[in-house]
Amino acid sequence: MAILSIDFGGTRTRAAWFSDELDMLARDEAPTPIGLPPAVVARVIEIARRVVPPGQKPAAVGVCAPGPQAGTGLILHAPTLPGWDRVPLAQMVAEAFDTPVFMENDANLAALAEYHLGAARGANPALYLTVSTGIGGGAIINGALFTGWRGLAIEPGHIKFPLPDGRIRSLEDLASGTAIGRRAKERLAEGDQPSALRNCDVVDGRTVGLAAAQGDALALEVVAEAGRWLGLGLVCLMHLFNPQTIVIGGSVASLGDLIFDPARQMIAAYLTDPAFNDPDLIHTARLGDDVCLIGAAFYARARSEI
Amino acid sequence: MAILSIDFGGTRTRAAWFSDELDMLARDEAPTPIGLPPAVVARVIEIARRVVPPGQKPAAVGVCAPGPQAGTGLILHAPTLPGWDRVPLAQMVAEAFDTPVFMENDANLAALAEYHLGAARGANPALYLTVSTGIGGGAIINGALFTGWRGLAIEPGHIKFPLPDGRIRSLEDLASGTAIGRRAKERLAEGDQPSALRNCDVVDGRTVGLAAAQGDALALEVVAEAGRWLGLGLVCLMHLFNPQTIVIGGSVASLGDLIFDPARQMIAAYLTDPAFNDPDLIHTARLGDDVCLIGAAFYARARSEI
Repeated sequence: MAILSIDFGGTRTRAAWFSDELDMLARDEAPTPIGLPPAVVARVIEIARRVVPPGQKPAAVGVCAPGPQAGTGLILHAPTLPGWDRVPLAQMVAEAFDTPVFMENDANLAALAEYHLGAARGANPALYLTVSTGIGGGAIINGALFTGWRGLAIEPGHIKFPLPDGRIRSLEDLASGTAIGRRAKERLAEGDQPSALRNCDVVDGRTVGLAAAQGDALALEVVAEAGRWLGLGLVCLMHLFNPQTIVIGGSVASLGDLIFDPARQMIAAYLTDPAFNDPDLIHTARLGDDVCLIGAAFYARARSEI
Repeated sequence: MAILSIDFGGTRTRAAWFSDELDMLARDEAPTPIGLPPAVVARVIEIARRVVPPGQKPAAVGVCAPGPQAGTGLILHAPTLPGWDRVPLAQMVAEAFDTPVFMENDANLAALAEYHLGAARGANPALYLTVSTGIGGGAIINGALFTGWRGLAIEPGHIKFPLPDGRIRSLEDLASGTAIGRRAKERLAEGDQPSALRNCDVVDGRTVGLAAAQGDALALEVVAEAGRWLGLGLVCLMHLFNPQTIVIGGSVASLGDLIFDPARQMIAAYLTDPAFNDPDLIHTARLGDDVCLIGAAFYARARSEI
């Protein structure tokens, strides 16, 4: 039973055709159009049709969609889709291909892909974090995606920490790429510490990361601060899930040891017992841009076999 | 297949004999003796033998033991058992009764009992927290005890929060009965706020709770502060597990709304989306002193049927 997989992403829409054994046989992609549901969905379906071999029909379709509640089959006010509200994307795709559709969000499907083919292969439990514009996550427990009661589980970006000034902030507001960019801007405005970032037109997570990689002291400090918060979040996840493997993906993870060394220092300092840790516990994500296509294919197969 | 259940607790050892349908047919208890392993284990086995009907043999034994690592079958340096180190309690009980023994810790087994017969009946996921001298927890996912890679999962007492002064503390150090007692003592020493606690010989979680229940302002403030930390811990658990039910037991939970109202205020303020919450989400534990005996019986039956 061949599987059609669709990754309806914020900037690109990808589609792939998978064999029975989930080998990727065809693949295509195009920019995700901007607009309102009917036209955008029609275009997404058109991109997907390109990978379906002539005369064939998928046994199931896996769809990766934005927003924590994608498991409902609806797109509920995703931040990247202004004007979309409870759009029944799964149903619209099901009608187009006349076949069952199984939809989930990107972090959950990335977790599933890394579990089957990537850096968390066979781990139980396997945790996946994406640290990028925001922070998302997914968990595989006993080989299956864990999504909780209403499909909302594993939102590590929403772990809350009190700051020294009494405010309470989300991990996402402290350790994401967005947070790194904002914190750098605050530091530049607050003081007169020299920094290459003072000559940048745009100070954001990406440019702060580049400056940090080139040894800029202010950028390094901002990245290290984010890494320490990330580490405190990981300490929480380790005490609650006792994972065998944690895979970290997303643009911030590509900073490597600049962000992971401070995180590891927090883990070493605040983990209750070394039994919770393992030198081989934390990995960077191994699958690239196709991670959600792969995850959606595995998800559709698992769900359609139930 | 009848099940023998043993709750090897810090102060009391309980034993019960369960029918095939897990009805409790006989029950006994006695103080847990203080001492070193051979003598103490012999006495525990003697207490357990009293509930076994003459001429019968259990099909399996469930044992509730202290310490997060009880699932290994070993007692590893539990704080209540000084001088005990890697004692193979499960194996010693197995030899005494010539039958398989399945051992787990108290919070995990209490979670299983509340899931089967108590306040979390059938919930998926079901989370259990005990807030007492310390803070422990357990989770039931898809009807089975979730213990993570090495049996260490669900230690909510070890969620870490930064304090305004820069220190980082465990939830257990902020919201347990021990923490309530310590914080009250600090408040009494720091200022001259009038309080009935100034006339108490012993200021601990119990006496602070009693004073709070009688309207003592300082005690109420200390309990509310613990409740707010507990709430922040619950916010973390709700974003990660998206539980259908959270059951809270332990002596601190018996303070009721004095501790839960401040916790609920934090949940209302810091939960990302109301979909994570439910008016019926949080319950107090329903099973009493026998909760671990019941949990151990269900655990032994589930494990011996695999």
